[in-house]
Amino acid sequence: MADYGTCFKVHLRLIEQTLKKELQSRAGRPKAIHQAMQYAVFTGGKRFRPILVLAACEACGGRMKDAIRPACALELIHTYSLVHDDLPALDNDAVRRGRLTCHKKFGEATAILAGDGLLTMAFEILSGVQPAERAIRLVREISIAAGARGMIAGQVEDIETASRRLDLATHDFICANKTGKLIHASVRAGALVAGASPKQLVLVDRYARAVGLAFQVVDDLLDQDGYCRFMPEDRVVQKAEKLIQTAKKVAGKLGTRARCLVLLADFLESRIPQK
Amino acid sequence: MADYGTCFKVHLRLIEQTLKKELQSRAGRPKAIHQAMQYAVFTGGKRFRPILVLAACEACGGRMKDAIRPACALELIHTYSLVHDDLPALDNDAVRRGRLTCHKKFGEATAILAGDGLLTMAFEILSGVQPAERAIRLVREISIAAGARGMIAGQVEDIETASRRLDLATHDFICANKTGKLIHASVRAGALVAGASPKQLVLVDRYARAVGLAFQVVDDLLDQDGYCRFMPEDRVVQKAEKLIQTAKKVAGKLGTRARCLVLLADFLESRIPQK
Repeated sequence: MADYGTCFKVHLRLIEQTLKKELQSRAGRPKAIHQAMQYAVFTGGKRFRPILVLAACEACGGRMKDAIRPACALELIHTYSLVHDDLPALDNDAVRRGRLTCHKKFGEATAILAGDGLLTMAFEILSGVQPAERAIRLVREISIAAGARGMIAGQVEDIETASRRLDLATHDFICANKTGKLIHASVRAGALVAGASPKQLVLVDRYARAVGLAFQVVDDLLDQDGYCRFMPEDRVVQKAEKLIQTAKKVAGKLGTRARCLVLLADFLESRIPQK
Repeated sequence: MADYGTCFKVHLRLIEQTLKKELQSRAGRPKAIHQAMQYAVFTGGKRFRPILVLAACEACGGRMKDAIRPACALELIHTYSLVHDDLPALDNDAVRRGRLTCHKKFGEATAILAGDGLLTMAFEILSGVQPAERAIRLVREISIAAGARGMIAGQVEDIETASRRLDLATHDFICANKTGKLIHASVRAGALVAGASPKQLVLVDRYARAVGLAFQVVDDLLDQDGYCRFMPEDRVVQKAEKLIQTAKKVAGKLGTRARCLVLLADFLESRIPQK
């Protein structure tokens, strides 16, 4: 496949511009918090979640501009979760994507509050979606996906297992929640703002489940961790490939407008390490 | 005035029951995060913000049950802010209201994530308000009040001034944001769910500004800090009394249904230390 940045050039430009505009228009006193928020958001990340939102919206017949608010909101939530995950009390990471982590750059207090600010801002941005019924459905689905029964549950379980032996069922739980729930919410958010039909939503849910898990399985292959601890590597590769095939097949049923959903699955496939 | 608990017995019972129901119905795996969230919420706090929501709703002709969702959401946001404020990187408090703080009881990682969970849950609860237009207005106003241009800005400024000399203008900024914005949002939330008229909203805003600042001035008198550093104590007492008189006068204009708003101002007055 073509390079990720080339494939999603239009999506990426819209996402970067909108995130910049939203963050800069809210900057103010005290400077440190807004600098820390911007530092955390602009780290050269893949923007996988917001691209999923835009691609799912297109796949269901919507326009990108209808999806840009939830796309940005989901990226802010993802970013806040990384800022808090990197803290000394959690993963204690000093470097992310080759740069100092937020707390290393701005101090722990500012990083904690910058994370809080990004999470809160995500909901402010969602409140701008029209009509109100759609906005409130997004607030509900995304808050549940990101909350203590979703992403946060996965993070807590992940931390707790650091001190005991991980089993496969627990790893499944962590994947389904820590990364799976927000990826699923991203795909659904795109479909919802496009006004997807119940039939389209069923397909979108199946795509989201497959891609959400594939994302994690490929990460495990790259890190030689997680699923690689419980099964031989070639079985993990098979698992990833099967999930990606499922995602592409389901996307195919959504028609030609789902081209970018197929490309995102291709991108995951291209990351599978070759023997 | 009568004892606070007696005055607001009906309000407090509704708030406690609803918070308990909302938190328990969401409990699940892993246990630690849900225990930490519940521990943080049930600490015997005054529930000043949710009572303000209910009282402002009544003052504008609404029913308490229309206001209970935003009331709980605002208490969850207040609670999350205390959990994060108490962390070692911020105020480093081991005890709050005579009990171990959340991170002392559950560890720092769980406390950070419990705070995140409470903030996220607040927006989930707001998404249940009907009609959707009202819910989305609450999400917008409350996210702005709690965000990096509101409560969080006050917290960051407060932390930053710990290392330099505080001046009166900065203390004003901290008060207006750290406590003022969420108190203001509480009063407005109650008025909004009651379907307040523009005229009622003007009065409610004036009440909220006076009470929000009075709350902080009285706290400063009790702690012998803040405003007491910049003016003689009798002038600080005068400032508090004047704000409370303003609040009562404005509440009076809302009519007899604003009785509880007057009682809340009375409560603040009763806390002013006597010479």
